Amino acid sequence: MPKCDSCAFTITGLPAASAEAVSPPAVENAKGKLLAIGGAEDKGTDLEKGEIHRNNLNFFGLGILRRIVEETGGPSTRIEVITTASIIPHEVGDNYLNAFGKIGCTDIGTIHIRNRAEVDNEEYLDRISNCNAIMFSGGNQLRLTSIYGGTRFLEIILKRYREEHGFLIAGTSAGAMAMSNTMIYEGNATRAHLKGEVKITTGLGLINDVIIDSHFEKRGRFGRLAQAIACNPSCIGIGLGEDTGMLITEGNKMEAIGSGLVIIIDGHDIRHSNIADIPDGNPISIENLKVHFCEKGNGYLLKERVFMQELKENAVVK
Amino acid sequence: MPKCDSCAFTITGLPAASAEAVSPPAVENAKGKLLAIGGAEDKGTDLEKGEIHRNNLNFFGLGILRRIVEETGGPSTRIEVITTASIIPHEVGDNYLNAFGKIGCTDIGTIHIRNRAEVDNEEYLDRISNCNAIMFSGGNQLRLTSIYGGTRFLEIILKRYREEHGFLIAGTSAGAMAMSNTMIYEGNATRAHLKGEVKITTGLGLINDVIIDSHFEKRGRFGRLAQAIACNPSCIGIGLGEDTGMLITEGNKMEAIGSGLVIIIDGHDIRHSNIADIPDGNPISIENLKVHFCEKGNGYLLKERVFMQELKENAVVK
Repeated sequence: MPKCDSCAFTITGLPAASAEAVSPPAVENAKGKLLAIGGAEDKGTDLEKGEIHRNNLNFFGLGILRRIVEETGGPSTRIEVITTASIIPHEVGDNYLNAFGKIGCTDIGTIHIRNRAEVDNEEYLDRISNCNAIMFSGGNQLRLTSIYGGTRFLEIILKRYREEHGFLIAGTSAGAMAMSNTMIYEGNATRAHLKGEVKITTGLGLINDVIIDSHFEKRGRFGRLAQAIACNPSCIGIGLGEDTGMLITEGNKMEAIGSGLVIIIDGHDIRHSNIADIPDGNPISIENLKVHFCEKGNGYLLKERVFMQELKENAVVK
Repeated sequence: MPKCDSCAFTITGLPAASAEAVSPPAVENAKGKLLAIGGAEDKGTDLEKGEIHRNNLNFFGLGILRRIVEETGGPSTRIEVITTASIIPHEVGDNYLNAFGKIGCTDIGTIHIRNRAEVDNEEYLDRISNCNAIMFSGGNQLRLTSIYGGTRFLEIILKRYREEHGFLIAGTSAGAMAMSNTMIYEGNATRAHLKGEVKITTGLGLINDVIIDSHFEKRGRFGRLAQAIACNPSCIGIGLGEDTGMLITEGNKMEAIGSGLVIIIDGHDIRHSNIADIPDGNPISIENLKVHFCEKGNGYLLKERVFMQELKENAVVK
């Protein structure tokens, strides 16, 4: 008979099979890949203007979008771009069609779902069942969770992610922040040191025990991610810079890609923290956050909480 | 005979007394106090508008300026406000006269030195020799170092700070950043993750082995202070929030005051860092920064590198 996790009482109202059926999906050992991007990934627009390099790394040829294509079989890959988070879905969709087009991809689709009523459209379900990658655009992450939460659409994506090698889910900005089970949806950076100023809710649950933030340095978001981590140090904070991403395999091995930084905040060694004791609006005190700056090529293992200069294919703890 | 610190050779060209005379001043065990403030300290302007509380702590009655007054003998204290860093010195000076006036202080002076030619004015030297506290206003920290570096004016302040209990040097924003021997003078927050984007020079040397940054959360400066610390992890980074300060006694014991946060960055445990190996303009990788968030009342011991929930008078390592 199934047991309650909290009190060890046997759950008598449900047969064992049903209790198992409602247990959360095991994304920890997923066969697919996640790519969380901090927003403003290079779309080759500098290339159009004849500006090849913004800095030594930030050129389109080595960019994040090319990595999505490479990870999913090359230019013949089928990618579905989901623009639901954005308030300008058609413009956003066209930008991606154009950007992927520059890498030679001709099989890119856009899905402009605007509300829950449209989610279970059979055409869309068929398309997300048959593509190689899905890319969630930026916008408002609450639109993603409130529209896709509990839908067949999300179930199909989760199932494919758990079971299929070579299937990739990318998300940029809001699309990245919605990936985790704990999601920041609001938080003014300049007031993020005050308790209660960082608003958190439940994300899409593609990955557990992390909290993802985007546009990280550009918008000065260290304080808000630190507050989120202080609330629950079991989560690892992933602060994604712009044009920068973390490619996550097996729900655990992360590799930084792109032209900027990924900042990791590990709160497991926090000693003192006042967050449970102070009223909202007061400054948060935290002793002992561990922080890593990851550039392109650096790795991080989530479960082991280990920074790696280089993420090897068969990464093990040093 | 004096010895060279680096090679242990005896220095034969100089008599012992001269060699001692050129050694750096010992600010490590200073008897005076330093108060480094992150800028925008509450000057009671909300009080004028009838707005008492911006948040639970940020009201003038418990503010930073009052602490300066309390630490130096109460409302009869003589404070000299030095406006050299600012490009609007008279306006800044008047603001402080007004703010200290609200706490009942009537003996506040302003020193509007604009260039090196004015620094050795005997009246000013006399005034800084006889006041209880000095307050460096905000503005441009390079104006402070380039105008006061190597002057009798600075020598008098340093001597008083080293030798006199009850003498206090406060500095806000640029005035705080100029206090350490290593001083950030420029660094765009949004590019601070790239090597070479944070510009550092020598400060006034009131305190060694720290790097002070101001307006810390408001301007998203975590990356720039981290870069400065990665360059030389022997320094402790002190990121001061607005209306927030660190009161430093014995050149070592720090107490957070004010309504915001002080963020400490300790780089002593850094393992991997690529800063010496990459060209300018490339992202910096750092493994293992230790970070503390200090609110009002929390303490930090610089030499021992220990966070304390409460800074006790006779603080010892826990």
